[in-house]
Amino acid sequence: MSISSGASHPQNHHTHPIAVLGAGAWGTALALLASSKGVPVYLWARRPEHAQAMRLERQNREYLPGAAFPERLYPTADPEEALHKAQFAVVAVPSKALRETLAQLPRARAYVSVIKGLQFTDQHLLRMSQVIEEVTGVSQVAVLSGPNLAEEIAQFLPAAAVVAAQEPGLAQRVQQVFSGKSFRVYTSTDRVGVELGGALKNVIALAAGMVDGLKLGDNAKAALITRGLREIIRFGVAQGAQEATFMGLSGLGDLIATASSPYSRNRTAGEQIVKGLSLAQLEAQKTVVEGIYTVKALHAWDQATGADLPITEAVYRVVYQGADPMQELIRLMSREAKPE
Amino acid sequence: MSISSGASHPQNHHTHPIAVLGAGAWGTALALLASSKGVPVYLWARRPEHAQAMRLERQNREYLPGAAFPERLYPTADPEEALHKAQFAVVAVPSKALRETLAQLPRARAYVSVIKGLQFTDQHLLRMSQVIEEVTGVSQVAVLSGPNLAEEIAQFLPAAAVVAAQEPGLAQRVQQVFSGKSFRVYTSTDRVGVELGGALKNVIALAAGMVDGLKLGDNAKAALITRGLREIIRFGVAQGAQEATFMGLSGLGDLIATASSPYSRNRTAGEQIVKGLSLAQLEAQKTVVEGIYTVKALHAWDQATGADLPITEAVYRVVYQGADPMQELIRLMSREAKPE
Repeated sequence: MSISSGASHPQNHHTHPIAVLGAGAWGTALALLASSKGVPVYLWARRPEHAQAMRLERQNREYLPGAAFPERLYPTADPEEALHKAQFAVVAVPSKALRETLAQLPRARAYVSVIKGLQFTDQHLLRMSQVIEEVTGVSQVAVLSGPNLAEEIAQFLPAAAVVAAQEPGLAQRVQQVFSGKSFRVYTSTDRVGVELGGALKNVIALAAGMVDGLKLGDNAKAALITRGLREIIRFGVAQGAQEATFMGLSGLGDLIATASSPYSRNRTAGEQIVKGLSLAQLEAQKTVVEGIYTVKALHAWDQATGADLPITEAVYRVVYQGADPMQELIRLMSREAKPE
Repeated sequence: MSISSGASHPQNHHTHPIAVLGAGAWGTALALLASSKGVPVYLWARRPEHAQAMRLERQNREYLPGAAFPERLYPTADPEEALHKAQFAVVAVPSKALRETLAQLPRARAYVSVIKGLQFTDQHLLRMSQVIEEVTGVSQVAVLSGPNLAEEIAQFLPAAAVVAAQEPGLAQRVQQVFSGKSFRVYTSTDRVGVELGGALKNVIALAAGMVDGLKLGDNAKAALITRGLREIIRFGVAQGAQEATFMGLSGLGDLIATASSPYSRNRTAGEQIVKGLSLAQLEAQKTVVEGIYTVKALHAWDQATGADLPITEAVYRVVYQGADPMQELIRLMSREAKPE
C-alpha cells in the first residue's frame, strides 16, 4: 500500500509507518500509543547503543522503564530505516538539539512537532514548528500538545491532546494514528496557540515548583497558575494565537497537569532550584528541563520588545541571576493592583 | 468611635467590630485573619458549648485545631453580643442551615456571604447572597470567594480572594478588614460571577476526586478540570456573570485549589464515593460537603430549563442515582466531538 493510495483512503493511514525522532520518555510513549494500534513505528535513537538496548530489551529502560514495546515498534539508530517509508516524522528531541539533529537526517514527507520549547535567534522568537520548517524546507509541520505526562500515557491511562496544522489533512492523519481507547486527539487550526501553550506552561510550572519547594501551599499555587494562564494568554494573543486555544487542553489543561504532577520535570526542577540546585546541575540532568531554555528565550524577547511577563521575568531572575525565589514570589504576589 | 464616623473615614474601618456567623473551619480562619490585624471579631457559634470551649481553649479544636486565637477574637453563642456593634456580618454557615440560622438572629447592617453553595427553591436557582437578601431584607450583601483552603489560611500561608458587592463601599470595607500581609483581597463588581464560581467548582471537585479515587492520573484530571471550567463559564455567563471573572481567582483559582488539595472536602468526598461511601454517610459527616447540595440544585435547574451541564449531570448520577463513577467518567471523556 503506497502513501498516495493512503492519501485518498484516509481510513488506511494507520497501516502506513511513522517515524519518531528521539527516544526520550515522550517520543517513546507516542511510539507505544501508535504501535499498540498496529501502526508500524520506527523509533529513532541518536545513540546506536540505546537503539540496540531497546531492541534487545523491548522497552526503553533508560527513559520509560517498564512499558513493554508492542510488536510493531522498531527501535533503530539508522535514519534511513526510520524515515524512508514514514508518512510523517514525529519530532521529539530536546529543543536545543533540534537544529543539529534535523541537519543530519534525511527529509521526512511531513513533521509533527511534540517539542514544548522556544528559541530566540537573530532577534526572532521561533516556535519549534518554525525551526523545523526553516531547517528542512518542509512546510507540512503539525504540532501535537496537551496534558500528556509520558509516564501515565505509557500506562494507557486516559488522556487527550490537540493536533494543529495549517492544512487539516495532516492533522487528521495524526489524529488517526494516535487516537485510541485511552488517548483522544482533537484537531485544531490554531498552530500558534497550541504550540505556545505547551512551551510557556513550562515556565509557569517552574514557578509552581518553587511554590511547592517553599511549601507555600495550594492556595498560593492556584493563584500563581491563574495568573500564569493570564500571562500566557496575553503573550500568545499578541503573537497571533486565539485566546480560546489557551482555555483548552493544550493551554490550561497542560498547565494544570504540569504544575500538579510529581512526574513533571519542569515543576520538579522548580522544587530543586529552591533546594539549591544550580543552573549547571539542571542543565546536566539526563532529562531536559525545557522551561529553563524557554524562559531564557522569552526573557530575550522581553528585552527586545518590552512585553509584560512578570512571572517569566521572576523565574528568569531566579534561574539565571541567582535571585531568591521567596522574594521573587512575594514580589509577584504583591504586584497586582486592587481591582481584580 | 461610631459606625457613622467610620463611614466617612474608611481608613478606620479596621477598628470597628465584625461578626462571623458560623464557627466552622472557614468562618474561624476568617475570624483569625481579621482579629490578627486588630479588628475585634465576634465569632458566633450555634452551640453554646462550642463557643464556651473556644473561649476556654483559645482555639477551635473541633474545626481548625492548632490555630491560636488572637486577643481580639471573641467566641460567643449570643447573637446580640455578636451582632449589635458589628459593621457587617460574615455568613459562614452551611447552605442548608442558612435560612433557619438567619431567621433566628437579629439583622446585621450588612452581610458578607462566604458560603459556596446554591439552592433550588420554587423553580428558582438562588445564590446564597440572594437567600440572605430574601430572608433578612438587607440589600447590602457582599460575597467573598477565592482559592482559600482554611487550613492554609490559618497557618498564614499566602493566599488571595475576591470580594464583590453591588456598591463598591462595602467591598472596600471588606477588603480593608481582611487584607493583610499573607492574605490579599481584590475587589470586583461581578457578584454573580464571583459567587457562581465558588459554588460550581465544588461539583467539578467532586468529579476530580472521583478521578483521583479511580487512579486515572493527572492527565485525565487536568482534562476534566479544563472542561469543568468551560462548563462553569457556559452556565455562569447564561446567568449574567462576566466570563473574565471565571478566569480569575474566584473561578479558575478556586477550582484548581479545590481540585488539587488534600484539604479539599469536596475533592476528598469524590474519592470517598469511589470507595463506596454512601450519600447518607456523606451527609452525616461533621464537615458539610457543599458540592452534593449544589449538584442537586443544578440538576433540578437543568431539568427545569434544559441547561447543558454534562459533568454536573454525571456527578448527579453517581451521587444520587448510584451510577458507576468509572462508567460516567468514560462517558464524559468520549463525549466530545473531534475538533476541540
